[in-house]
Amino acid sequence: MADDAVLLTVAYDGTDFAGWQRQPGQRTVQGVLDRAVEAMDGRPALTRGASRTDAGVHALGQRVAFDPERSIPLTGWVRGLNVNLPEDVAVRAAEHRPRGYDPRFDASGKHYRYLIHTAPTRDPLLRHRAWHVGRALDLGAMRAAGRELVGTHDFAAFQAANDHRDNTVRTLTRVDVEAGGPDVIAIDVEGNAFLKNMVRILAGTLVEAGRGRFEVARVRALLRPGSGRPEAGPTAPAEGLTLVSIRLGRRHP
Amino acid sequence: MADDAVLLTVAYDGTDFAGWQRQPGQRTVQGVLDRAVEAMDGRPALTRGASRTDAGVHALGQRVAFDPERSIPLTGWVRGLNVNLPEDVAVRAAEHRPRGYDPRFDASGKHYRYLIHTAPTRDPLLRHRAWHVGRALDLGAMRAAGRELVGTHDFAAFQAANDHRDNTVRTLTRVDVEAGGPDVIAIDVEGNAFLKNMVRILAGTLVEAGRGRFEVARVRALLRPGSGRPEAGPTAPAEGLTLVSIRLGRRHP
Repeated sequence: MADDAVLLTVAYDGTDFAGWQRQPGQRTVQGVLDRAVEAMDGRPALTRGASRTDAGVHALGQRVAFDPERSIPLTGWVRGLNVNLPEDVAVRAAEHRPRGYDPRFDASGKHYRYLIHTAPTRDPLLRHRAWHVGRALDLGAMRAAGRELVGTHDFAAFQAANDHRDNTVRTLTRVDVEAGGPDVIAIDVEGNAFLKNMVRILAGTLVEAGRGRFEVARVRALLRPGSGRPEAGPTAPAEGLTLVSIRLGRRHP
Repeated sequence: MADDAVLLTVAYDGTDFAGWQRQPGQRTVQGVLDRAVEAMDGRPALTRGASRTDAGVHALGQRVAFDPERSIPLTGWVRGLNVNLPEDVAVRAAEHRPRGYDPRFDASGKHYRYLIHTAPTRDPLLRHRAWHVGRALDLGAMRAAGRELVGTHDFAAFQAANDHRDNTVRTLTRVDVEAGGPDVIAIDVEGNAFLKNMVRILAGTLVEAGRGRFEVARVRALLRPGSGRPEAGPTAPAEGLTLVSIRLGRRHP
């Protein structure tokens, strides 16, 4: 099967990484995966990730492909890579795809989870997992704001100020706000594709709603033509965000 | 209120600590708390903890007392200590007790939680929080084993081999085994007092039951006179253990 690409499902703790993408002099997830593949394949590797997560962002289901030269069974890749990877990255599964396959261009949906910690004092066990907002939030108001964002909209106001895509229309299929344990709120967001920092700006906007600062009408107005980044809430910190899973394969072939 | 002792509720991530107790040349929770109190009180401090947690063990509700010289309100202690503490320790609350109060001798019950991760591949986000057993376990068998241990028994077989208490009779009021999320099992243990490593040996024994290696009769036999440490299961690793809370005040005054 050396003619096939290998497609991995990868989990990582983003705390000690400068994000997904390989950069000179930086510790990145792609960088440590490339080195682990190289150690097994015996030649330079450049893995292809489905999602370019930011520094501090975690993943349970990042998808990563590469084209090996050596013929190694899938179970061998999983075991061998896990031996070669540091403890903050793990390969959870492997499957075959045609050579050259790039999951970035095959992703038809992503599921992100954002965690918020509401207790007045910080919790050391959550410090790299959740945004410590430190006060109670109105779950009902957050849910109402989230419902406004579900559907196909122009999310220009939810795009990082330093990014400028021509087309900022995206479709969200799910924005759920639930209690995720004592003093923890979980926001689950699913959609077809995402703008830069979109989930973190969405989380920041929902927290504004939960604090009583943004009414539902104001959230709705963010989706209207002419709305820009300054109108939305703050960009929630990276440590609260986890890429849960990625759906591959186009829905409309 | 400078005549009163201050009693704190303290949370910590035990990963980067050599345990609770102050030791020369080691980073310990007591050591960093002592320094934080000293910074506010202006003189050497020796805090008194209710429980001497091992290296790698976490806490949500450790209790810690000290006798300050300066008159600082309780809210000032909470805020000031949190400013002076590293990010892996936090003070959650403070109250007054009579000077000289030692929570270690006033603890009438403790609640521990032990987390087990059963997925075949490791999860980087759980690596400092759960024991990666890496295989499915029989919850029913673990529960049955746990039920045998509830009550007042001689727990000599559940005492670290290098520890020798005269009296090894303890009372457990709760040993609950529940699913704690996808691929996670949580063991909640409550009791009046605990021997060294008792919860970790209990967790190791319940995992043996969950793997089908220990029958209920074998677990029951561990509580009989003459049973010793070698008969019980392995000591589960420290990273899975969290001291959830401590009940203070004697039940029978």
